[in-house]
Amino acid sequence: MQIEQILKKVEKGELTAREALAQLAGEKEANLGFARVDVERPRRRGMPEVIYAEGKTADQVIQIVRALRAAKQAVLCTRSSPELFDAVSRVYPEARYHDAARLITMGDEPDSKKIGLVAVVCAGTSDIPVAEEAAISAEWAGARVERIYDVGVAGLHRVVNHLDTLRSARAVVVVAGMEGALPSVVGGLIDRPIVAVPTSVGYGTHMKGVAALLAMLNTCVPGISVVNIDNGFGAGITAALINRLGEPGA
Amino acid sequence: MQIEQILKKVEKGELTAREALAQLAGEKEANLGFARVDVERPRRRGMPEVIYAEGKTADQVIQIVRALRAAKQAVLCTRSSPELFDAVSRVYPEARYHDAARLITMGDEPDSKKIGLVAVVCAGTSDIPVAEEAAISAEWAGARVERIYDVGVAGLHRVVNHLDTLRSARAVVVVAGMEGALPSVVGGLIDRPIVAVPTSVGYGTHMKGVAALLAMLNTCVPGISVVNIDNGFGAGITAALINRLGEPGA
Amino acid sequence: MQIEQILKKVEKGELTAREALAQLAGEKEANLGFARVDVERPRRRGMPEVIYAEGKTADQVIQIVRALRAAKQAVLCTRSSPELFDAVSRVYPEARYHDAARLITMGDEPDSKKIGLVAVVCAGTSDIPVAEEAAISAEWAGARVERIYDVGVAGLHRVVNHLDTLRSARAVVVVAGMEGALPSVVGGLIDRPIVAVPTSVGYGTHMKGVAALLAMLNTCVPGISVVNIDNGFGAGITAALINRLGEPGA
Amino acid sequence: MQIEQILKKVEKGELTAREALAQLAGEKEANLGFARVDVERPRRRGMPEVIYAEGKTADQVIQIVRALRAAKQAVLCTRSSPELFDAVSRVYPEARYHDAARLITMGDEPDSKKIGLVAVVCAGTSDIPVAEEAAISAEWAGARVERIYDVGVAGLHRVVNHLDTLRSARAVVVVAGMEGALPSVVGGLIDRPIVAVPTSVGYGTHMKGVAALLAMLNTCVPGISVVNIDNGFGAGITAALINRLGEPGA
Amino acid sequence: MQIEQILKKVEKGELTAREALAQLAGEKEANLGFARVDVERPRRRGMPEVIYAEGKTADQVIQIVRALRAAKQAVLCTRSSPELFDAVSRVYPEARYHDAARLITMGDEPDSKKIGLVAVVCAGTSDIPVAEEAAISAEWAGARVERIYDVGVAGLHRVVNHLDTLRSARAVVVVAGMEGALPSVVGGLIDRPIVAVPTSVGYGTHMKGVAALLAMLNTCVPGISVVNIDNGFGAGITAALINRLGEPGA
Amino acid sequence: MQIEQILKKVEKGELTAREALAQLAGEKEANLGFARVDVERPRRRGMPEVIYAEGKTADQVIQIVRALRAAKQAVLCTRSSPELFDAVSRVYPEARYHDAARLITMGDEPDSKKIGLVAVVCAGTSDIPVAEEAAISAEWAGARVERIYDVGVAGLHRVVNHLDTLRSARAVVVVAGMEGALPSVVGGLIDRPIVAVPTSVGYGTHMKGVAALLAMLNTCVPGISVVNIDNGFGAGITAALINRLGEPGA
Amino acid sequence: MQIEQILKKVEKGELTAREALAQLAGEKEANLGFARVDVERPRRRGMPEVIYAEGKTADQVIQIVRALRAAKQAVLCTRSSPELFDAVSRVYPEARYHDAARLITMGDEPDSKKIGLVAVVCAGTSDIPVAEEAAISAEWAGARVERIYDVGVAGLHRVVNHLDTLRSARAVVVVAGMEGALPSVVGGLIDRPIVAVPTSVGYGTHMKGVAALLAMLNTCVPGISVVNIDNGFGAGITAALINRLGEPGA
Amino acid sequence: MQIEQILKKVEKGELTAREALAQLAGEKEANLGFARVDVERPRRRGMPEVIYAEGKTADQVIQIVRALRAAKQAVLCTRSSPELFDAVSRVYPEARYHDAARLITMGDEPDSKKIGLVAVVCAGTSDIPVAEEAAISAEWAGARVERIYDVGVAGLHRVVNHLDTLRSARAVVVVAGMEGALPSVVGGLIDRPIVAVPTSVGYGTHMKGVAALLAMLNTCVPGISVVNIDNGFGAGITAALINRLGEPGA
Repeated sequence: MQIEQILKKVEKGELTAREALAQLAGEKEANLGFARVDVERPRRRGMPEVIYAEGKTADQVIQIVRALRAAKQAVLCTRSSPELFDAVSRVYPEARYHDAARLITMGDEPDSKKIGLVAVVCAGTSDIPVAEEAAISAEWAGARVERIYDVGVAGLHRVVNHLDTLRSARAVVVVAGMEGALPSVVGGLIDRPIVAVPTSVGYGTHMKGVAALLAMLNTCVPGISVVNIDNGFGAGITAALINRLGEPGA
Repeated sequence: MQIEQILKKVEKGELTAREALAQLAGEKEANLGFARVDVERPRRRGMPEVIYAEGKTADQVIQIVRALRAAKQAVLCTRSSPELFDAVSRVYPEARYHDAARLITMGDEPDSKKIGLVAVVCAGTSDIPVAEEAAISAEWAGARVERIYDVGVAGLHRVVNHLDTLRSARAVVVVAGMEGALPSVVGGLIDRPIVAVPTSVGYGTHMKGVAALLAMLNTCVPGISVVNIDNGFGAGITAALINRLGEPGA
Repeated sequence: MQIEQILKKVEKGELTAREALAQLAGEKEANLGFARVDVERPRRRGMPEVIYAEGKTADQVIQIVRALRAAKQAVLCTRSSPELFDAVSRVYPEARYHDAARLITMGDEPDSKKIGLVAVVCAGTSDIPVAEEAAISAEWAGARVERIYDVGVAGLHRVVNHLDTLRSARAVVVVAGMEGALPSVVGGLIDRPIVAVPTSVGYGTHMKGVAALLAMLNTCVPGISVVNIDNGFGAGITAALINRLGEPGA
Repeated sequence: MQIEQILKKVEKGELTAREALAQLAGEKEANLGFARVDVERPRRRGMPEVIYAEGKTADQVIQIVRALRAAKQAVLCTRSSPELFDAVSRVYPEARYHDAARLITMGDEPDSKKIGLVAVVCAGTSDIPVAEEAAISAEWAGARVERIYDVGVAGLHRVVNHLDTLRSARAVVVVAGMEGALPSVVGGLIDRPIVAVPTSVGYGTHMKGVAALLAMLNTCVPGISVVNIDNGFGAGITAALINRLGEPGA
Repeated sequence: MQIEQILKKVEKGELTAREALAQLAGEKEANLGFARVDVERPRRRGMPEVIYAEGKTADQVIQIVRALRAAKQAVLCTRSSPELFDAVSRVYPEARYHDAARLITMGDEPDSKKIGLVAVVCAGTSDIPVAEEAAISAEWAGARVERIYDVGVAGLHRVVNHLDTLRSARAVVVVAGMEGALPSVVGGLIDRPIVAVPTSVGYGTHMKGVAALLAMLNTCVPGISVVNIDNGFGAGITAALINRLGEPGA
Repeated sequence: MQIEQILKKVEKGELTAREALAQLAGEKEANLGFARVDVERPRRRGMPEVIYAEGKTADQVIQIVRALRAAKQAVLCTRSSPELFDAVSRVYPEARYHDAARLITMGDEPDSKKIGLVAVVCAGTSDIPVAEEAAISAEWAGARVERIYDVGVAGLHRVVNHLDTLRSARAVVVVAGMEGALPSVVGGLIDRPIVAVPTSVGYGTHMKGVAALLAMLNTCVPGISVVNIDNGFGAGITAALINRLGEPGA
Repeated sequence: MQIEQILKKVEKGELTAREALAQLAGEKEANLGFARVDVERPRRRGMPEVIYAEGKTADQVIQIVRALRAAKQAVLCTRSSPELFDAVSRVYPEARYHDAARLITMGDEPDSKKIGLVAVVCAGTSDIPVAEEAAISAEWAGARVERIYDVGVAGLHRVVNHLDTLRSARAVVVVAGMEGALPSVVGGLIDRPIVAVPTSVGYGTHMKGVAALLAMLNTCVPGISVVNIDNGFGAGITAALINRLGEPGA
Repeated sequence: MQIEQILKKVEKGELTAREALAQLAGEKEANLGFARVDVERPRRRGMPEVIYAEGKTADQVIQIVRALRAAKQAVLCTRSSPELFDAVSRVYPEARYHDAARLITMGDEPDSKKIGLVAVVCAGTSDIPVAEEAAISAEWAGARVERIYDVGVAGLHRVVNHLDTLRSARAVVVVAGMEGALPSVVGGLIDRPIVAVPTSVGYGTHMKGVAALLAMLNTCVPGISVVNIDNGFGAGITAALINRLGEPGA
């Protein structure tokens, strides 16, 4: 724990109280005025800060990217429009755009050697953008990912067909809109933790994803937890954190 | 059509305008002051008026029963407490009480010879009261009913086990609480009309059945329609009306 | 039941376990990567898979159409924009566009000989697009359809005028926005199953159809079930499935 | 206008500024500490202040009654339990209890000569308590009232039967739970202002009256306005205020 | 009552049963295929059918106008865009457009001699479009209207200033967005029926008018009833129906 | 700032790193197993931790009281039933119970010399329990409090009567149920910060306080902020914190 | 109090009753037809009326500005688009536009000498527009403001870093979207009144700010009150009103 | 995969098609009429079926327990009242009751050797029942559990105090009511997957847990997923499934 180390340095006279306070106060953060980039996050959280592009100007995003790159950290920028990517890639030609997922990535990923297995499953073709956001985020965070798409409950044989893959995964992300039944069906067949993602695919009483969300929260199958509507990113990172875990007894 | 027949009688001089008006105005209704029992309903709707007991006093229910029995019509009384049944059976010893379903029935049922097949399916043991309300209502309205209970989606093989019965039914009522996924799963396997009933079984975000209702309304499987939360009665009658239909070309 | 037949073939040595597994696993599905077209659906569900166009690219829709046509199946594509139809009809000139209903159809319909009678009723002129979606979907699925439009409850005589047609239908679809009262009024007059469709026609507290939906779910008339807001397609298919049923005792 | 008269008295020297201020400040109100009884209300609003009993102790209600009676004003006390009535009638034996409506009344009513005609219509027997609250409140406020109960939309002839009464009323209160369709149906047949009252009679998605309320607010018939769920009192007073109006050109 | 007269004609032999049925069935309605114009409405409801333009094509509106004009009835067309007016006025140059209110009017109004007094009050400048819809609708239906705008509760003296006008009105329409408090404040000062109209003016938790609606439904002042959010038309017609009433004792 | 002082002690060798860590980690908290009483709160927050009794057993409450009393801190226990008070007062006879407000207090209050002025206003008699919770909480936290009760908007003169008191207060708490209009009306008349408290007094669409809350959040008067429904305690503390502030330039 | 002074003038014969009434009735208000500018507001409320631009035409805004400037009052115009500013600045070149906050200001501010200290804190870069609206509104109303931006709870050290500033402020505005946790975290560390502002920054179940609002209303920390979603203006004015208060004992 | 093995047995002639079908159909399920106990679940899901007691009679629960015990499986029965436990323990004296958590357990737990570490954290004393449900469920499913209770965000040092434990856990369950901020604060400090559980602890706008749920779903910290309100059981099982995972590369 950082604070303990800092205190020990003060004890040893390696740091003055003032210097210690500055460190504790996070002076390592890159203060851009409109943003304070948390460059200590890899140490604390195991991966760099991620940029949520919605509501930020292209200029703001580029300055945050600069702070991250200066700290030699990898970049993941969510909810990115093609226009934003154009602006970013003019400054950083090495930036990559994942258009279905609306993600920008840059630099070596946190865990560049992909390990374990995360399965990303989606119910219908229209759910693919959210599923891709989950899959690429999980890969960015170090997971090996297998995609199983368009296996909705109207044709059960489609999901049963992939039981072996599902059972060999360490975590499964299940993405569904409409009635949101797929996580329960998958969950009933396997013994792995499932992160369910409701999508806004639907109309009328779907209420932009609320119907699917409620179904998932009310699953009769234990072992399923849920993230916000269309939050493929959150699901992908959660699955990657699970995937990283070593042997429990170790 | 009744109105046409009445007009013809006026034309023929069999009725005066005043008498016709009286008939059209429904003088056959039994006006109890607090209630007007619609004794013409079997002619118009194919089955007698049903008594919704909630919010009615035992005395009011008994008076309505009296009016129906006077018109030689069968009785179905929904949302009936054991206390109500006690009061009713003191006057009408032939009354029968279905306690799980909280129904009182009396007299010959509308179609006393049970025909066709309605399957009533439910997801969990806690959904049985609503399923029973559906099953007994459908039987009351003339359908032969088969019950398939506790076949939730956490164990798919349980529902697959009953595919033959499901496929031989003319209409299927599917009752489920929690995530409400069962109608979609059943619907994907058969080609029969399904009436889905969400139940209030669940907690938290289930919001007393809203979660299951929304799932059912947002099913990805066509051929499924939905009734109000815990409305087993409505589903049973709908299934019985479907079950009664003759050959389409006939 | 398919699985039984497959097992019998294995028993007779006509299939190896491996071949059987492949068949059960649905290898007949046409895997397009982004979609797995369920070409076995006519056998299981009585009609081909329907394409929900929302959220799919024109290219994705065309590939799915190709898979269906390769399997000699009829096409129904819902929520289709005129732009999508342009793209599809360039590849498939035989495609037909139903602009009020926003449907694309193609090929022989599942039951090309129209039978029975489904009545499609709507409350106001603004509800016609949803009513047309229901009517054309029902026709596509083999029903003979009669349309009764603009017969809202503000002028009761308008609906009474059509009682004979309503009573001769095997199933009635009732489409209404605003207060959603029409299904109850129609339901009180006939003895046929009614599929009610709330529309998003209204403003303010109508909440894009929720007001009409709630009214329909809370009908005091048994025999009415409900589909999602603006889901004319679902109602049309449900009515067609009901319409198809033969004699109950048969 | 009161303020003008007070000012004139100050101008004439009949009142000092201080006395005027006291009057304007409402010193005529009876300040009971926990309540300030507005004894000027008959002058300003045409009828005395009404007591809303919910959340008040019996003792508080009795003290407010005392203040009103001291000012020789009539009493209407809504949402009154039998227990409250017992307590009140021990002090005021002339108090009358209307049990279905849960109202206590006392003293000469605001307009003791009943005039005009207000029709109070309700859909079902379970709606009668709210309808009675409306009817008695309207009578208390000076209206002649006719009750037409249990004329729901499942049997249209029942309401048509009473068209003459409805058309001779000056205002019509329509009370309904379930789908709340009755105001629209009545409204389509007459040219009188309608005050609609949704009741909490229903279950599941009725959400304790919200479904009926939304239906009424979204009526396709102009001339209908709505009060809060179960607010028979508010509807009765509104209808009585309408009923009192003289000739418009006068 | 029409039906009685028809029956008498059948009794006298002036009509056959068939002809009577046709009349009862409303053959006087102008059936345009997509719409059935209810030309009997002035007789039944005291004013012609009003056209709700939303969701109708310009061509549909023009055909309905034609049917109304053919029956020599006045036209009121709500929710009309300037584009719609352009299209209508090309065919009917006498059409008038009220742009704030988005109304089209045409022909002699139902009661061309304006009588009584309806006051239309609004809380803020942004509420004026809805207030104008109410005012013009009330005028169209025969009421004399006085407008009192921008008298919100943040400056109570503004509304107190107009007490004389408010007290001389036969009905008062109060239009407010934001917290929707104005109807209660006005209602506390006068003894006339108030029709409250919530507007969608606000943001965040205003939820497009729901906050104001709820406030109005929960008013502590009896004598206030409410119409749908932004439904100036409904409020204007309701006020006009009240305004029309003659002496109650007459 | 505490941390700075601790660091300086480490720098001076007055504390080891370990001891510093213990202090930072809050070892001064009284760990009861089921609760960690934050006895440092007066230093950090200016008043002791308050006990929220709901969901706690009497035994748990008494143990927390013991920890606070051991630290010589005053006690405020909210949402306390008479039963809880009985249990507490058996151990601590000096405990006082405020029954309308359901509060238990004990010991010298944080600022025992009452200063400034907080006005607590409520709309109706039924709102008094919440108003009392606010008033006693504010007094507990050191404010002088004046109560102005039952001054709802149906009689504006009642609130105008108290303008002088309202204008001399440093903060005003306004408590209202029903339509929640009182804060806007008070706010329009004075220039002091207002803390508005919606109460659950109402029925139907009041939705247990949501209607009043929304009205308050949507006030057209700036200077008003809102706390949770029935949260008199939160409003009283907020007003007391405002009341405590010294001269801004000081 | 104004009314007292007016009455005294009448008593002394300096005013007639008629003139007094005119003054009371607010003839000092500038009646523009569509708006009544409340030029007495600085006297009553301590600051001029503010213009809410949404739903007003540029011409309406300019006329209101003219009335305020004629009364020599400062202007604050909220929710102003760049287009509106262009129109206003053509007439009033001295107008200033604050583009992030979408505010127009003009003239000397109510308290031109900035006093005290209001801290405005926000959780993320995307919340800055609302935070700026709060900060500039508070400055306009006379407060000295310090901005602390992008200090969300994902990196607690960022907010801890600013404790000295937060503790020296007289009122703290905390702006946050997403889970809305920042006010609770800040509130736990200081003893100053906090005005919390939920923003609409988020997606899915954030429901445009409702999630953050609910979190803030349900804070476990007393001393926090809340304004409407995105209502930086309301929070800034509230904080400025608190900041202005003198010594409580004074 | 079971089906493959069955098919191979058919291929080898070890099973007839009929016998295979019976096995596939799940004849191993214990059909109790009202329930079909899924005794194959340990094989498929890694742990036995769990009994959800709500809505089941004591007799039904005991029969299900009997079926599980007959299959030598461990029992976990959630939402169990003390009365239910009394009934169960009369038949099965070895049953254990966990009263805060309302759980009944019986038999050897699925993984009787506790491994890894799951930390269960809760915000307040009132949240302990849900936290205990999570902790005991996780232990039942084989995890070693450490409890960290009453560490809400109003005193940040309390949670910081336990960082070492939190960082050594393989999965962290965070339970909170009120504003639901604790998962975000914990999540910002560690790199482990967090399962967040909203509780119904709160009042007013808390809406029985919805406020906390929304906060958790909208967390700004990735790596957090959420279960239903008060669903400690679901969270505990999810954490245990995560905890069980071996080395990712293994």
